[in-house]
Amino acid sequence: MKTIFFKNKPVISCAKSVGGPKESEGAIGEFIDVKLKDDTLGEKTFEKAERQILYTALSECINSSGKPESDIDAVLAGDLLDQIISATFATRNFKTGYFGLYNACATFTEAMILGSVLIDGGYMNNVICATSSHFSSAERQYRYPLELGCTRPPQSQWTVTGAGACMLSRKGKGPKTSCATVGRIVDYGVTDVNNMGAAMAAAACDTLVTHFKETGFSPSDYDLIISGDLGTLGSRILKDLTWEKGFDIEDQHVDCGEMVYNINEKEYQGGSGAGCSSMTFCSYFYKRLKEKKFKKILLMTTGALLSSVSAQQGESIPGIAHAVAVEC
Amino acid sequence: MKTIFFKNKPVISCAKSVGGPKESEGAIGEFIDVKLKDDTLGEKTFEKAERQILYTALSECINSSGKPESDIDAVLAGDLLDQIISATFATRNFKTGYFGLYNACATFTEAMILGSVLIDGGYMNNVICATSSHFSSAERQYRYPLELGCTRPPQSQWTVTGAGACMLSRKGKGPKTSCATVGRIVDYGVTDVNNMGAAMAAAACDTLVTHFKETGFSPSDYDLIISGDLGTLGSRILKDLTWEKGFDIEDQHVDCGEMVYNINEKEYQGGSGAGCSSMTFCSYFYKRLKEKKFKKILLMTTGALLSSVSAQQGESIPGIAHAVAVEC
Repeated sequence: MKTIFFKNKPVISCAKSVGGPKESEGAIGEFIDVKLKDDTLGEKTFEKAERQILYTALSECINSSGKPESDIDAVLAGDLLDQIISATFATRNFKTGYFGLYNACATFTEAMILGSVLIDGGYMNNVICATSSHFSSAERQYRYPLELGCTRPPQSQWTVTGAGACMLSRKGKGPKTSCATVGRIVDYGVTDVNNMGAAMAAAACDTLVTHFKETGFSPSDYDLIISGDLGTLGSRILKDLTWEKGFDIEDQHVDCGEMVYNINEKEYQGGSGAGCSSMTFCSYFYKRLKEKKFKKILLMTTGALLSSVSAQQGESIPGIAHAVAVEC
Repeated sequence: MKTIFFKNKPVISCAKSVGGPKESEGAIGEFIDVKLKDDTLGEKTFEKAERQILYTALSECINSSGKPESDIDAVLAGDLLDQIISATFATRNFKTGYFGLYNACATFTEAMILGSVLIDGGYMNNVICATSSHFSSAERQYRYPLELGCTRPPQSQWTVTGAGACMLSRKGKGPKTSCATVGRIVDYGVTDVNNMGAAMAAAACDTLVTHFKETGFSPSDYDLIISGDLGTLGSRILKDLTWEKGFDIEDQHVDCGEMVYNINEKEYQGGSGAGCSSMTFCSYFYKRLKEKKFKKILLMTTGALLSSVSAQQGESIPGIAHAVAVEC
């Protein structure tokens, strides 16, 4: 069984999001809590800027919870940079416990699953789940130096500059996590490092179909089925693949990557990055859930588990997706 | 509270270790399950070799458990390479769920804590915790190209080529995890990337003192207090720091890094790497626990959370340590 149920339904007691200038002007910009005007935050490097973005999300989350820092038992966090330095250096400022996680852009729900288990099982009282990404730090690590000004192919996505942090608590008010399906690694042999959506779609389909089969739920049991950052092309592949397996998610499916920017921009397939899903969930979706505009959603973030070394050594791109059901 | 107790005491139902040629000839070599004669395993790159080592540990662990792969709910794994590609590509061969973790050389006990929570809380029946490292893949990623033949300073450690994988189960026989203390990030401002022991010792002290204070245990409640890979210098710093805080661990303390090699070799301070503690625990300590030669130990792996980018951008090295009590 890959699906686990949370009997005590951990509460998402607060959530805060930070977005870069481009993200703040995008389709969900008005819901973002901290809108940046400068994506360097005055720092000398993009890596230092990214950790400031994540630190801001963590701080805002703790502040808005009304709890002292000493009440927060652990931070579960990750990002896309080598050795997840954004998560580490952002969390270094706090005295909480720290679990560093890495499942690429699927890290946010990985954190929510493990965080929910820690809360639901009574091991901890409050934990924070958080991820970040930055267009400029990711682009130069995974692809080309920014100064080269390389042309982006039409199947590419635009890494979101942003972060999201949410607190899971034993007590309090807010939307709750009710169950989760843990993803497995699925590799369909995609080798194009500019085509993350195609690399991740098969894993997303696997997790989604497993979720429906193990829970007995159908797509219509959810108001929304939200994938992390498949983008436009990847979303289409996901819908086709799940339809072939007997589940039609056309009416419920949305993708954080597809909705984060205005469609007339140059990011082609939409947004991506570990911060794409966390920023979108912690802004638009969390606020809509609190308003009860959505009653039950399935958040499934998706990760492409490559590195620049694995790609250069001729490896294909393994994908993974973890799903968490949230209801109010 | 950073310490959590496992009421149902998850069983470490099996454990398997793989060691490189140098490790197999070391002080605990006779306890290693799979002794390699060639650290490339016939692969073209050291990165591909490392994932084969981890894959071997995972396979051996599953085979020795007597359980079909379908009974394994998840693998919790990590390694030192960018985007933890060893863990990802090794786990890609299995259909289990996957949680990718990164806390550098503290990843093994990070996995054991989260794995124990998944088992103890009744969310899963069997999970595998595993980590790996490889001297040649780590050295060229973190420091210099191997071909340069750089002189190693006396405070340096030798990254272990090896892996360890252990299975945590709800049912079965074997040593059990009884409680754990989650580490927080501690940074004392060490910037020497060749002096990992000093960078990690303060974090190890913090976790250990927290453990004693929160549990009420004293050092003599354990047969052994095992740090992950502080090496000789780092171990001395840890013992001094904890003594200053009122806890004398001199009689119980051993360090996986200090004991993994014969002392007449050129690795100066001893071994390090995410595979150092897992290989040592899954070979020597696990076998001794099964023989009841040790009745209660505290395994505390230690991680230096730097990246080559963070070091080059002038950052100090944050440390972390997670501790798990194992008893038979």
